[in-house]
Amino acid sequence: TVRRLAPHATTIFTEVSRLATHFDAINLGQGFPDTDGPESMIEAAVRALRGGHNQYPPGMGIPELRHAIVADETARTGLVHDPETETLVTVGATEAIAAAVVGLVEYDDEVVVIEPYYDSYVAAVAMAGATRRAARLVRSGGHIRLDVDSLREAFSPRTRAVLVNTPHNPTGAVLPREDLEEIAALCHEFDAIAVSDEVYSHLTYDGVEHVSIATLPGMAERTLRISSAGKLLNCTGWKIGWVTGPADLVEGARTARQYMSFTVASPLQPAVAHALRHEQEWIATLREDMQARRDELAGILTGVGFDLVVAQGTYFLTADPSPLGVTDAAAWCLELPEKVGVAAVPFAPFTDAFTDDWSHLVRFAFCKRPEVLAEAGRRLQALA
Amino acid sequence: TVRRLAPHATTIFTEVSRLATHFDAINLGQGFPDTDGPESMIEAAVRALRGGHNQYPPGMGIPELRHAIVADETARTGLVHDPETETLVTVGATEAIAAAVVGLVEYDDEVVVIEPYYDSYVAAVAMAGATRRAARLVRSGGHIRLDVDSLREAFSPRTRAVLVNTPHNPTGAVLPREDLEEIAALCHEFDAIAVSDEVYSHLTYDGVEHVSIATLPGMAERTLRISSAGKLLNCTGWKIGWVTGPADLVEGARTARQYMSFTVASPLQPAVAHALRHEQEWIATLREDMQARRDELAGILTGVGFDLVVAQGTYFLTADPSPLGVTDAAAWCLELPEKVGVAAVPFAPFTDAFTDDWSHLVRFAFCKRPEVLAEAGRRLQALA
Ligand SMILES: CSCCC(=O)C(=O)O
Ligand SMILES: CSCCC(=O)C(=O)O
Repeated sequence: TVRRLAPHATTIFTEVSRLATHFDAINLGQGFPDTDGPESMIEAAVRALRGGHNQYPPGMGIPELRHAIVADETARTGLVHDPETETLVTVGATEAIAAAVVGLVEYDDEVVVIEPYYDSYVAAVAMAGATRRAARLVRSGGHIRLDVDSLREAFSPRTRAVLVNTPHNPTGAVLPREDLEEIAALCHEFDAIAVSDEVYSHLTYDGVEHVSIATLPGMAERTLRISSAGKLLNCTGWKIGWVTGPADLVEGARTARQYMSFTVASPLQPAVAHALRHEQEWIATLREDMQARRDELAGILTGVGFDLVVAQGTYFLTADPSPLGVTDAAAWCLELPEKVGVAAVPFAPFTDAFTDDWSHLVRFAFCKRPEVLAEAGRRLQALA
Repeated sequence: TVRRLAPHATTIFTEVSRLATHFDAINLGQGFPDTDGPESMIEAAVRALRGGHNQYPPGMGIPELRHAIVADETARTGLVHDPETETLVTVGATEAIAAAVVGLVEYDDEVVVIEPYYDSYVAAVAMAGATRRAARLVRSGGHIRLDVDSLREAFSPRTRAVLVNTPHNPTGAVLPREDLEEIAALCHEFDAIAVSDEVYSHLTYDGVEHVSIATLPGMAERTLRISSAGKLLNCTGWKIGWVTGPADLVEGARTARQYMSFTVASPLQPAVAHALRHEQEWIATLREDMQARRDELAGILTGVGFDLVVAQGTYFLTADPSPLGVTDAAAWCLELPEKVGVAAVPFAPFTDAFTDDWSHLVRFAFCKRPEVLAEAGRRLQALA
């Protein structure tokens, strides 16, 4: 393995899922639902398979899917992108992030990441050979907010891009408009772009609204917005994501991804297009379901004695195990599958510059059937 | 788009397929078959979709597929790899190549490519930020052979890897053992690895045998062998490929690809595993079919007046249009869809250092139904 990737050898998600399988633990680590997407989507994929959609599709994705993506995005955010030049279908949000960074960031550029971050962001920066500068989120009055001073310090004239993520993985926080405005102001000041991972934009709770940084004044021209079918439609294994944004930025991502995957699995594309068109109600129900699951898991974790951070989006709850006498959360978390039969993800791999702020926390996924959460609750009682 | 990828803006395959669609031409450009893989494979994918294989599979690929890959490879080459640590499922051969190069080649390393080359090789070297050194193939007595002197000149103490490709795209040549021995000798001398693209290993004709460089003495330890379901099983749109090799090299590719795609479409993996186990006869028949198609297209092209280079593997025939009065093959080729209603791929994008050797040639794909080849023949008569 090359030097630049050596620090990113195995993602924590793979490590935790491996432990979960090995110890037959309930996997509240890696974020994937345990029920599948709408039946009409599965059946659309069946028709595509049997109907000859099995050879190379266009590199940018089939037109039908690009149009459906744009329509879905417009309904969600008001943004209007051209399906021909401003929309690119990718192998999940992961490829979207890698392609955006590798295709647009030069070696001598800097990229700002906000800790705690989803781990592929920093690996993508390493692949591009660029320099990473860290800002941070902070806990403030039960909420999670951007530390604006840290962001200002992280930006410089060499900043090419900032990786934005809201609703936020791993914390579950939904960044308020004011925080996004601070990021936007710095993008303008330093002529930087935003690569905005919004795969959980449909999963906000308690009436909190998702704001896309692309909708702030002047930001549509400098934002690549990333989303994915995996999270919208409970098909994380299909690996279909997308990027929208101005044509020149999409072009950079498109160029890079031609040599990463070339294109995305052909029989699954018409199925996602179908579901984006016809299953918006299913997606709305998913949000209600997920809010209920969050409440269930929050009750369980509080009952066991964790301190919880209020989370109003995503699949995830952030828990502080200190009240249970835990001093090394990362080590404790990796023992949890064996000791208790439940898997969770430690925050430690998501921080670097600001480790002290975050590494005592643990992330639990609540995107599971109620009976699975209940059984996890029974097992976690061993800690109480 | 970043400077290092600017020269690789749009692959010739995308460009030619776009022209073919636009002018309703018969697409003998991009290499994909126009009949689908075995029905039992399609139906296995249907069962997987309906049977809940829709969430994240393991990053390396499902165990069932990794075992099937190893069994298929052993039957084909005699190589024996560990499915746990020496086998990685990738988003087609394209991701395999990118991940191998990005995961194993440092910025200050050199990579040897052999012209004419499949275009993603050089884009992958550019993504890794490494330096490319070119060797060449030459036409010798109706055959295509390695120019050993050029290879020797291309290797240096800084060489980390050589990209090997046999059966060879675009020429259709099957490299003889002696040529592979020369490459192997230089790998040993300079302590370099071979990244060996063998996606057409099952498609050799006239009794010619494919030799994998990994089977030469001492080379199993320093070769990453790449293949794909797309070409083995007529499912180019499924984007399922793989890498096998020693664990430390596979580990480099695995690390990089975690942040390119994370993993491969889950419902298609059990289907490919099924087909590798149960459809070897289908693959054997494919070879016979393809040899017949090659003969058909060779007859057509010769009849029209092209000079043909004998090709004993792959989907492709190499044709010299000079006898038809063509002086700029690349420009002529890009006009062909509009003028004649047939698309082909020029060699020009596959060369750089040795352009004069190859840029007068054009590649035609014969992986099409007989009636399609016949219709292409009728259209091409306009050139005679
Ligand atoms: C690509 S594996 C990680 C899945 C995920 O989004 C998460 O668990 O955070
Ligand atoms: C990935 S598009 C190119 C397909 C192919 O193998 C070829 O046409 O050479």
